[in-house]
Amino acid sequence: MSEHLIKDHKGTARSQDSKDKTLARLKKIEGQVRGLQKMVDEDRYCPDILMQISSVQQALRSASKSLMRDHLRHCTTKAVRESDDAADQVYDELIELVYTHSR
Amino acid sequence: MSEHLIKDHKGTARSQDSKDKTLARLKKIEGQVRGLQKMVDEDRYCPDILMQISSVQQALRSASKSLMRDHLRHCTTKAVRESDDAADQVYDELIELVYTHSR
Amino acid sequence: MSEHLIKDHKGTARSQDSKDKTLARLKKIEGQVRGLQKMVDEDRYCPDILMQISSVQQALRSASKSLMRDHLRHCTTKAVRESDDAADQVYDELIELVYTHSR
Amino acid sequence: MSEHLIKDHKGTARSQDSKDKTLARLKKIEGQVRGLQKMVDEDRYCPDILMQISSVQQALRSASKSLMRDHLRHCTTKAVRESDDAADQVYDELIELVYTHSR
Repeated sequence: MSEHLIKDHKGTARSQDSKDKTLARLKKIEGQVRGLQKMVDEDRYCPDILMQISSVQQALRSASKSLMRDHLRHCTTKAVRESDDAADQVYDELIELVYTHSR
Repeated sequence: MSEHLIKDHKGTARSQDSKDKTLARLKKIEGQVRGLQKMVDEDRYCPDILMQISSVQQALRSASKSLMRDHLRHCTTKAVRESDDAADQVYDELIELVYTHSR
Repeated sequence: MSEHLIKDHKGTARSQDSKDKTLARLKKIEGQVRGLQKMVDEDRYCPDILMQISSVQQALRSASKSLMRDHLRHCTTKAVRESDDAADQVYDELIELVYTHSR
Repeated sequence: MSEHLIKDHKGTARSQDSKDKTLARLKKIEGQVRGLQKMVDEDRYCPDILMQISSVQQALRSASKSLMRDHLRHCTTKAVRESDDAADQVYDELIELVYTHSR
């Protein structure tokens, strides 16, 4: 939590290091998605493509996990220490993300 | 099942139409992944990015669903009609995909 | 596929062995759910209960996997060998189960 | 957060109301699991059983969601307000639950 933060007033504060890592991950995922297009274009065996889609999903899940950690450490901590109302708001958002959106 | 198939001897047979749709979907997913990079780069609010990751996951799931349908209609049908052994092999693969890999 | 099947005319044909195994699994799951009630009743630490819920989900997933295997080997094989229409129907059902319901 | 809490010193503090609701949910889930056994015993059509398994999974997910909310409101809030170290510990646990265990 002692990392140097990029911004504190709007958006989510993230350390430069964590930001770089997430961007590198997403670049790699973009490459994987292009690889998927090539597989489809070359009429590769469906189960191989499906397996590869599942790797991309796993990679996105890792990116999501690391963004979630940033979110907890920075925004969530701040909100919880501010007030019960701010905490409730950030918790509602978390529950929504975890139980409705991310799977 | 009466669609004109691209190839029948290697890889997965798919209609040109289904192939084009899958490629279009994957192109769109590639764009979404680039959008994610932009969001991270601009220090957008983490839950917004996480929500967007979840949209990409959903889009991948749709692509997977349509590839699975092709796989069932073509390879699976062919294998099941060939022999019990061929059927068992394709079923093992399906179970593995559905219960181990896909989410 | 050479196992003795219980019934062939209605419901899903399953070997007695596979049926017994599934019932044993479900009995165990019932016990786990009662264990969860005890944990809640004793005010156990939430993450421990959540972890236990996740074990039950995993156990249900295993039961589902084994029922799916029966379904593929028996009903699916029969339908696919019958006609393209019967195959399409069983595939639609599979896709629905895998992509909409099971996760 | 102003609800009367059952205990504060060990285990997870939960309101009596929330505890009763969770227990009622789990009782219902236990009944659903017994219903599954009956379906298997009566050789019901596999996809119908699989659909029912998926309902139980959904019910477990709802129970998990409500326990998670209790956990956030009580334990998480307390830990985050205590210290950065306590917060980190509770966050690690959350991440583990959400990304490794829960589905």
